Amino acid sequence: MPGETLAADSTRLLKETLASGCALIDSTLDRLLPAETQVPTSIHKAMRHSVFAGGKRLRPILCMEAARMVQGELPAGELPIGIEELGSSLEMLHTYSLIHDDLPALDNDDLRRGKPTCHVAFGEDIAILAGDALQTYAYEVLSKLPCAPEARIRIVEEIARGTGTIDGMIGGQVMDLEAEKTRADAARVEYIHRSKTGALITASLTTGGIYARGTYEEIEKLREFGRAIGLAFQIVDDVLDVTKSSAELGKTAGKDTASAKATYPAIFGIEESLRRADGLIARGCEALDRFRGRSETLRSLAHFLVERKN
Amino acid sequence: MPGETLAADSTRLLKETLASGCALIDSTLDRLLPAETQVPTSIHKAMRHSVFAGGKRLRPILCMEAARMVQGELPAGELPIGIEELGSSLEMLHTYSLIHDDLPALDNDDLRRGKPTCHVAFGEDIAILAGDALQTYAYEVLSKLPCAPEARIRIVEEIARGTGTIDGMIGGQVMDLEAEKTRADAARVEYIHRSKTGALITASLTTGGIYARGTYEEIEKLREFGRAIGLAFQIVDDVLDVTKSSAELGKTAGKDTASAKATYPAIFGIEESLRRADGLIARGCEALDRFRGRSETLRSLAHFLVERKN
Repeated sequence: MPGETLAADSTRLLKETLASGCALIDSTLDRLLPAETQVPTSIHKAMRHSVFAGGKRLRPILCMEAARMVQGELPAGELPIGIEELGSSLEMLHTYSLIHDDLPALDNDDLRRGKPTCHVAFGEDIAILAGDALQTYAYEVLSKLPCAPEARIRIVEEIARGTGTIDGMIGGQVMDLEAEKTRADAARVEYIHRSKTGALITASLTTGGIYARGTYEEIEKLREFGRAIGLAFQIVDDVLDVTKSSAELGKTAGKDTASAKATYPAIFGIEESLRRADGLIARGCEALDRFRGRSETLRSLAHFLVERKN
Repeated sequence: MPGETLAADSTRLLKETLASGCALIDSTLDRLLPAETQVPTSIHKAMRHSVFAGGKRLRPILCMEAARMVQGELPAGELPIGIEELGSSLEMLHTYSLIHDDLPALDNDDLRRGKPTCHVAFGEDIAILAGDALQTYAYEVLSKLPCAPEARIRIVEEIARGTGTIDGMIGGQVMDLEAEKTRADAARVEYIHRSKTGALITASLTTGGIYARGTYEEIEKLREFGRAIGLAFQIVDDVLDVTKSSAELGKTAGKDTASAKATYPAIFGIEESLRRADGLIARGCEALDRFRGRSETLRSLAHFLVERKN
């Protein structure tokens, strides 16, 4: 049937996008980060340990595909020049948040992506500083992006907001910590998810759009898409924590229940949580209608986020 | 004697500069930082606790005076418009480094400027995130500075480098940690001091110059001045740690000796350390010769750094 061929084609394309995006980001991170032999060596080893621990590079890939879609008129497989540096800075920020989140004083996790977490491998002191340094490096990379100074400055602002304390990544982490001490309701769980994970996913998409010189309306459509898929992504993460083993996830499973964390499945149950995730993906994809045929990859990525197994 | 009147005048002017600079930075930080009532409240309280713990605002004051000197032709007492926002971002970065440095996994200090450190008052988890957030806010403020986008981007780069791992603030912290485990020689101690404290002091001066549209040569002269006085500042800090009580310092005294930290007095003795600090101040001030009469305030500030009592 033609429909099946289309679906198979789309799956093949998605796999290629994920694989090539991941390889491009890995090699760019390797080029941008200080070598392990660079003094002081301990922190550079620690930064690379966590950055190269097998991340899926989802945020950079979303960023690069948003830029490709907005720019348009590129030969198949080509990306706007230099966009991988923006993508890499997003991965540095994501990794910094994971390193600090895993610390004994926070989630106290020993395992991340199947490997010892940064503080287990290098000590708490170096892990704290390695997280700090990845944040710092991200901004150094942003300050040198090969795009107009006006765009660079807008990107810095967008990312600082997305990772900040008000509706941003750190704000979500704090609300998450506070929720462990009180009973969380649906509104609070949604707030946590939207800010803790959603805000950086959204910033990945909007900054990709800014890099590719998108219009105000295009950036806002990307924001709408990002807000929807960012929340869906975290709902699925919560569900996987309940339904999968540590080996399947590459990190300690069942931690949310053990620590009475505020999660979607705890409040709505697994079925209803997945139904909501699907609804969010559908709504998010509607925001891409104005980009028509060029939005195929981002739509596939959105569906991939809720169908993934780890 | 006329000489005495001149010295008295210069002391009075310096006191005024320090007092008015401190007041301006305090009120600007109060305006820029989220209110304590802003959700999530715990982190905003923690950020303000540490930012308003009685800092002398030396980095912002150096930055503002560098900008005033480079811009020139300003009525007495006036500063380049908006420079206090750049100054405040430097203080946010300095405070973030202090919060993380004080953590149990690093220096494990309970007292800072006579008040409980952030993790003592708010818990380790919130303290780690409050430090993270102050770094993030600093970049958000920088992205919105009221100067040309080109200057803003150069300032972001200069600050990211100055606080990074290679010859920057974090690099110095790591070398300092490593030095506790091995015997430190003079070269290593100088590296630690130049990067841990000196690099952000230097960036405070150079970014002030960039903000005021200084020439390449002017910025490099400020860098030379910063490198000299930054090292002198840290030498004096080491000496104060040995010679003063905790009550006089507002922080735990004698910690360096107790933890076998790499310090100048431990290697050169107190007298020789102070002689070197004086030599650095003299050499630093020579770098300001090209600015002639306009450099009086920065020269006084440099001398103040080595003559201070806490």
